[in-house]
Amino acid sequence: MFAEAEADPSLSKEAFKPMEARLRVALLNAQYQRLAKADKTLLVVVAGIDGAGKGATINLLNEWMDPRHIKTLAYGPRVGEELERPPLWRYWNDLPPKGSTGIVFGSWYAPMILEAMRKRPDQDSIEAQAVAIRRFEAMLAAEGVQIVKLWFHLSAQAQKARAKRLLASPETSWQVSPVDLKVYKKYDRIRNAGQTVLNHTDSGHAPWVVIPSADEQMRTARTAEAVLAAMRQRGVPRIPASFVPHSRPTRVADRLGQLDYDARLDKSDYESELGLLQGRLARAARSRKFQERSLVLVFEGQDAAGKGGAIRRVTHALDARQFDITPIAAPGSEALARPYLWRFWRQVPRHGRIAIFDRSWYGRVLVERVEKLTPPAQWRRAYAEINDFEGQLAASGALVLKFWLAITPDVQLERFKEREKSPFKNFKITAEDWRNRDKWQDYAAAANEMLARTDVARAPWHVVSANDKRYARVQVLRHIVEALETQL
Amino acid sequence: MFAEAEADPSLSKEAFKPMEARLRVALLNAQYQRLAKADKTLLVVVAGIDGAGKGATINLLNEWMDPRHIKTLAYGPRVGEELERPPLWRYWNDLPPKGSTGIVFGSWYAPMILEAMRKRPDQDSIEAQAVAIRRFEAMLAAEGVQIVKLWFHLSAQAQKARAKRLLASPETSWQVSPVDLKVYKKYDRIRNAGQTVLNHTDSGHAPWVVIPSADEQMRTARTAEAVLAAMRQRGVPRIPASFVPHSRPTRVADRLGQLDYDARLDKSDYESELGLLQGRLARAARSRKFQERSLVLVFEGQDAAGKGGAIRRVTHALDARQFDITPIAAPGSEALARPYLWRFWRQVPRHGRIAIFDRSWYGRVLVERVEKLTPPAQWRRAYAEINDFEGQLAASGALVLKFWLAITPDVQLERFKEREKSPFKNFKITAEDWRNRDKWQDYAAAANEMLARTDVARAPWHVVSANDKRYARVQVLRHIVEALETQL
Repeated sequence: MFAEAEADPSLSKEAFKPMEARLRVALLNAQYQRLAKADKTLLVVVAGIDGAGKGATINLLNEWMDPRHIKTLAYGPRVGEELERPPLWRYWNDLPPKGSTGIVFGSWYAPMILEAMRKRPDQDSIEAQAVAIRRFEAMLAAEGVQIVKLWFHLSAQAQKARAKRLLASPETSWQVSPVDLKVYKKYDRIRNAGQTVLNHTDSGHAPWVVIPSADEQMRTARTAEAVLAAMRQRGVPRIPASFVPHSRPTRVADRLGQLDYDARLDKSDYESELGLLQGRLARAARSRKFQERSLVLVFEGQDAAGKGGAIRRVTHALDARQFDITPIAAPGSEALARPYLWRFWRQVPRHGRIAIFDRSWYGRVLVERVEKLTPPAQWRRAYAEINDFEGQLAASGALVLKFWLAITPDVQLERFKEREKSPFKNFKITAEDWRNRDKWQDYAAAANEMLARTDVARAPWHVVSANDKRYARVQVLRHIVEALETQL
Repeated sequence: MFAEAEADPSLSKEAFKPMEARLRVALLNAQYQRLAKADKTLLVVVAGIDGAGKGATINLLNEWMDPRHIKTLAYGPRVGEELERPPLWRYWNDLPPKGSTGIVFGSWYAPMILEAMRKRPDQDSIEAQAVAIRRFEAMLAAEGVQIVKLWFHLSAQAQKARAKRLLASPETSWQVSPVDLKVYKKYDRIRNAGQTVLNHTDSGHAPWVVIPSADEQMRTARTAEAVLAAMRQRGVPRIPASFVPHSRPTRVADRLGQLDYDARLDKSDYESELGLLQGRLARAARSRKFQERSLVLVFEGQDAAGKGGAIRRVTHALDARQFDITPIAAPGSEALARPYLWRFWRQVPRHGRIAIFDRSWYGRVLVERVEKLTPPAQWRRAYAEINDFEGQLAASGALVLKFWLAITPDVQLERFKEREKSPFKNFKITAEDWRNRDKWQDYAAAANEMLARTDVARAPWHVVSANDKRYARVQVLRHIVEALETQL
């Protein structure tokens, strides 16, 4: 796979000049076409042998294209806040909008390359990382983020020769750092690591392209060609099911139908239990151990199920500096220009903090499914994607708890009517709420399937009977307190 | 000022009930009207005596209004990244858009209150903080961010009685922490601090309202009334000139006219000097001392003056992980919903990092002035606001350097024509560029006034003759390198 690149091919000035002119015009045109359509983001992942001129080539691309729509995203080892979130958090956070291009240095391949470069690489770790990367890239590709990965390569001799040439003059010697010289000695190791990484993660929808890099002109032309080919690619690539599992429609248990909706709590029991649970929550959230964890709370349920009221009973016990409530409505323009999980990734809490979602990413398999806003092939993918997302949260120290507040249609009707009558609650009820009511069964079916597919130990669902608000609030608090006390 | 509140007035249930209904409807209506107009943000700053029920009242406001358009912004002591930016950075960063409301706990008053609570407060520090706060609030007010500040107050006896009542039952005792009990002993100190702070920072455009807080119903009603009054306020308040100095039009020096445009550098000198300067820059930017500083580079100049090329010569010497280039175009919808400096505050680099602006906040006094996008009263304010902004950057450890790349009209014409001819440069030239050329004198006058008013020692302008690109690039690098080497 590196045979051509290690032959260090070169391109003459005469051959390069006309290519350069053609490539520059073509790249600019392709860039403007993508910008006009704004249906896909392009990520150019940059990796390869050290001293192969990656940085210089990317600078050139910036010069050739309109730099206002290219963003260089360069990452080092994770530091500070980054360590308190899943490793992929920073890439999600910085994802450029559709129509634009991101050039990624220090990408999600960096840890895998490092592992593969060790004297005795841990094959299990490499395999696990490859699986995670394949799923990540497949999801991005399916959601309109196109990925092309460049591996800059040259022979060991060419690498040495380049360093020698640069070191010969004080005007260029600074380009070679002492670290580089040390790295050069590891040529074989990084070469073999590259082979491992490329073998594990090359795919039709996120291909690796090897760039022969010994000669500047060859390197430039091949990079421009690879980027151009990616920019010109039309349509969403076919992604094999082995990359992102699609769940098939099957019968699922009717958890909502089987719930006991008669559970009730009288006022004095409620006030006493609530106060005691809030006290326990306050202590747990302020404990030293919680400073190394975080808490993600998801609230879903039918309209008027009492999500807001339950959330307020939780936050009452918390320090206002410690939590954020994110009410989820239809996505805005920023969110629509990215994969659907993007806006939720941005709210991932750092350690010691609590993120509360009033509705959530589950809209993908609830409202988007029932209202046919998203085709089945896409929301069917979402179960696995969501399990992945929550799995990453849990692995990074978050406690993920999900609540479905369940009411019966008659109670909803009662609450709707009450809201309509109240001069300060009628804002909470709209024609849409009445329309959603007509689709009660569709929503119930969607909720039941969601519960069946995403109720996992590391991010469990609690279905709470909410015909009685007091009972529901105490149940929610109890589940949170018990989970915190068990885990801390 | 606290006389009424320290009499601990209360409100009977019978008096409160009808008020509550009226206030809830009025608050909701006012909220939706603001949302529909979307011309102002409302910030409700919350402060006052501990244990006065601030948190509970704000929870209630959230319940009364539509919580989707209220954001609680709660801050503790600055930590992590926050310490590497100016103290006001976090408030700028989180500023809600026009139409919505932010409730601010731990606001910009927290350090001033702490200082005023000391046994022997440093009066100079208090005065300096008051001046900074007055300017900050005046700028926000002038830019459509309305501010109302609530001081929750009650008598020492009422404070003690409340703590005693809460502590009496295990269902509520957790609401009083050991820290609270310690704080209660400092009643007189916080009371006096409140007096100092209110005296120094009360103003027509950002008033303090004292909320009598001993009685829950009184506290709720008065809070709701204060917020309602603020929400209903129309128009931009008159802001006394003593808060934000407006610069009067005066004759300024013609720095652009007096420049030597003949400076040139031949190719071999250029390459050698450039390489050496890049080497020095690379070393400085990688030095340990730079890890405690940051660098902010501003590039302005006529169209085709060579800003992009100069920037690339700078970044060539830098690690891609270390810098961000922000090209500034017309503001998008997010930026338009906030004060004009907001989008620049968001790009303030943390220590060890470099932020490069290809055009900048100076657009306020250049394009917005010349194209009459902003009325004179507003851009005349901007000189002082910009000096303030850059002063805060410098005070937090940033090195701020500003470059005006100056060319003559004939050279611009030459470059425009060249660009039009080149198939891969003609994207850089538009009808607008030709139109701007017709206003050459207006832009020059605006630039000269900008240079006269904002060339300050802590954030100097360098006017660089750029008819010869090589000369300009070397000058830019030289200024950066010399500033870094002097300061580190």
